[in-house]
Amino acid sequence: MSLPIPLERGRTQSLQEQIYRFIRDQILHGKYPAGTQLPSTRELADGLRVSRNTAVLAYQWLVSEGYIETRPGAGTFTRSVVSDTIETIERDEGLSARADKPAVVLKCTSPLADYGSGIRSQFDFWYGRADPRQFPTKTWSRLMWETLSYARSSLSEYGPQPGNLALREAIAEYLATARGFSASPDHILITAGAQEGLNIVTRLLVEAGTTIAVENPGYGAVATLFETAGATLLPVPVDGDGLIPDNLASHRPKLIYTTPSHQFPTGVVMSLERRQALLAMAEAINAYVIEDDYDGEIIYDRPPLAALAALDRSQRVIYVGSFSKSIGAGIRLGFLVLPPELIDWAVSLKSLASYGQAWTEQAVLAEFIRRGSFRTHLRRIRTLYRARRDALTDTLRDWLGPEGGISGSESGVHLMVRLPDHMPPAARISAIARQVDVALYTPEGAGTWEPGRRAADDRRLVFGYAALTPQEIETAIRRIRVRVDREAQEAG
Amino acid sequence: MSLPIPLERGRTQSLQEQIYRFIRDQILHGKYPAGTQLPSTRELADGLRVSRNTAVLAYQWLVSEGYIETRPGAGTFTRSVVSDTIETIERDEGLSARADKPAVVLKCTSPLADYGSGIRSQFDFWYGRADPRQFPTKTWSRLMWETLSYARSSLSEYGPQPGNLALREAIAEYLATARGFSASPDHILITAGAQEGLNIVTRLLVEAGTTIAVENPGYGAVATLFETAGATLLPVPVDGDGLIPDNLASHRPKLIYTTPSHQFPTGVVMSLERRQALLAMAEAINAYVIEDDYDGEIIYDRPPLAALAALDRSQRVIYVGSFSKSIGAGIRLGFLVLPPELIDWAVSLKSLASYGQAWTEQAVLAEFIRRGSFRTHLRRIRTLYRARRDALTDTLRDWLGPEGGISGSESGVHLMVRLPDHMPPAARISAIARQVDVALYTPEGAGTWEPGRRAADDRRLVFGYAALTPQEIETAIRRIRVRVDREAQEAG
Repeated sequence: MSLPIPLERGRTQSLQEQIYRFIRDQILHGKYPAGTQLPSTRELADGLRVSRNTAVLAYQWLVSEGYIETRPGAGTFTRSVVSDTIETIERDEGLSARADKPAVVLKCTSPLADYGSGIRSQFDFWYGRADPRQFPTKTWSRLMWETLSYARSSLSEYGPQPGNLALREAIAEYLATARGFSASPDHILITAGAQEGLNIVTRLLVEAGTTIAVENPGYGAVATLFETAGATLLPVPVDGDGLIPDNLASHRPKLIYTTPSHQFPTGVVMSLERRQALLAMAEAINAYVIEDDYDGEIIYDRPPLAALAALDRSQRVIYVGSFSKSIGAGIRLGFLVLPPELIDWAVSLKSLASYGQAWTEQAVLAEFIRRGSFRTHLRRIRTLYRARRDALTDTLRDWLGPEGGISGSESGVHLMVRLPDHMPPAARISAIARQVDVALYTPEGAGTWEPGRRAADDRRLVFGYAALTPQEIETAIRRIRVRVDREAQEAG
Repeated sequence: MSLPIPLERGRTQSLQEQIYRFIRDQILHGKYPAGTQLPSTRELADGLRVSRNTAVLAYQWLVSEGYIETRPGAGTFTRSVVSDTIETIERDEGLSARADKPAVVLKCTSPLADYGSGIRSQFDFWYGRADPRQFPTKTWSRLMWETLSYARSSLSEYGPQPGNLALREAIAEYLATARGFSASPDHILITAGAQEGLNIVTRLLVEAGTTIAVENPGYGAVATLFETAGATLLPVPVDGDGLIPDNLASHRPKLIYTTPSHQFPTGVVMSLERRQALLAMAEAINAYVIEDDYDGEIIYDRPPLAALAALDRSQRVIYVGSFSKSIGAGIRLGFLVLPPELIDWAVSLKSLASYGQAWTEQAVLAEFIRRGSFRTHLRRIRTLYRARRDALTDTLRDWLGPEGGISGSESGVHLMVRLPDHMPPAARISAIARQVDVALYTPEGAGTWEPGRRAADDRRLVFGYAALTPQEIETAIRRIRVRVDREAQEAG
């Protein structure tokens, strides 16, 4: 007596695992009712041409899970584990597979969710990309190697809640010199990039009905995040000096979200007067200000502007930092600088949310900053990205002529273009670009939050240029220009 | 004319940065009213004994931020940026620093928050620790090195939302062979350890008033997580077969949280009958079951029990996996296996929450699993930890005698002890242990959720033994035993 078990040799599943699973499933599906005698391990082994040991292991497993039992002298039998319960499950299976499940509470989809998965164009002007070719792989690998050589317990144990102390100290030093404000490492919380930092702030301070002032146009991912938490968003207009705080007094938002170093998507840099006015307003209406400094360290034509947090007298600025644009999004590291009264809450929340970041990335980044490699890296990419910025602005001015407008080109890794009226709207240009394997993004396509804007007649495009060489940029724009001109001729 | 600027050479702050910050602060504090003439860069440089270039850079910076202006032929003057705004801020500074801030919405502290920061004892029986000495550093470093050599864009760009595909495929294979159920990589979401997985499930399915069945005693961190989301917790008793589902029908929780492979803190393994009953109940009341399989792959005395998910007919088990106990918490990697209807929500939520894990850890772990290193590692630590488990149980039996009870020792990395009645309560034993530099934990001290239990007379202790050698374990217990006996004599 044996069993007809279809075994596949050389599968990742071992033979005993295949035997175990086959017999278990037969029992669960009622094919072997309770008390059915099974072959002895020798019979089974001979029948299936497997080693005796294989059969023994499979049976041991089944016994230990209570599917079968061995009666001394009598043999091996299936047990009565196939209870009414199973029958019920069997009967309802078709139904229950379709049955209603408890409702999902959260209703949202992330504007970020698409990117990274889609098909890439040959030339992609996505705003958030750093240049893969510029990632400091050599240094990073060397530091990683050194770090792992002494890591041990850091790799096996839970680290301190706020994040690696060496990294927090390195960030504090960096902020003092590069962003113009001093923060205690005790007020810094390491996060998985800016997105988690914003998520933590949301969970700390936002509940259903909380009013949050958001730049209009502004960053879509954060607007979605706020809305997911039930917040009411107050659109705040932006001009050439940045966010205009005047109408905040009447609405008294609890939070003001802003990107002063390089407004998303316009690229505008908030003026000093505006920064002072914003902080005074925040104090007057007792609001926190969330400063999202996502690419503030990438500056071309002037010394870095001190962060808004550097002017903050009443400790109400929550500073959100990220290394995604300056080093790479793949390392998933950013940080929050929090007012003293929030830090403990934020740390508890972080520990509940994800219990910290991978230790190696933190340790490597700490060394990367401490040894000055980060400054060197920044100097290098600034020079490099400036050349790309120049190539893009020159090519665009040549194409669009005097009526074409360019904003936000003096810093960061993206700029915004306003197409002249004689040209097709942005969506059309973007579609034409796809035809020649170039990805261009309207503000909407780049994940911009902009209530009330009709996208159809939008004449703006958001160009991320950091990941493309000057040659690639010129080629890409030329291709689009040729195709657009041809269409114009055919039309006219 | 020059300025009395205290410069510190050799500081991380460059000289021009120190000059910039000094002058900026004077202006912001109203020391240099609008129109105050500043020394020329040459005068400043001479006065401070710095290079002309240093002074020029500092001034450029101040000009670019709008603090000062250069009037051709006249000189350099402070601008009227010191508006009423600043005056207000000045006047209110003391006040505003103390001023009320918007309220924090979230009120919680994490039971995990303490560990990792506190002072360590020489021998620490904390339940969650893997052995630092067992982290596969060599293999990990080699894989890291290989991985980084071809990484580039993976490091600089945002990865796919659900996590590294190679890793999800490797995990799916591992689950099929080691945990007895087949999951599509499309239903797997990579998380920062089990904690983030549980957080995502919470944010997906829990709102104020949601009833969640939680094992009593159970895992404190998750109870806190649920309570933070406003859930009502339903304590469910646990016996030698695991969670007792009988009384769930009347309360109809939406979620049932359980640790079937190795119940926390008792260490009980849920029997097959109980697993079937639990799943049938979940189906009857239409609840999701959260299976937290935190150390299910570490088994000593029997083949691995298939996961609860392997018996799940109606796709209502949400499987929470982690590599923190099996490899190390420092890599911060875990995963969720979700029912089809939840995966898209979970991915969107993950992208909003933290936008994925560090790419390198994911790629390295994928290779670690695919090349069989994980299996080898598991075999190795199982043998090693079994010897430690044996040393602990032998030493404890010898000490506590027949009235002493031990549960949960057949798998996992911790067990629970019940002290005989003639001994002092657990809290006292733990205090005595500290005196001899050994950290012992009561269930409460180990972060157990146990409503209604009075900790004072608790006679249970939770021992994590994976990080201590047999010798260390014996030494530690002997020390405590000697001290306890002496106290008993002195008392008697």
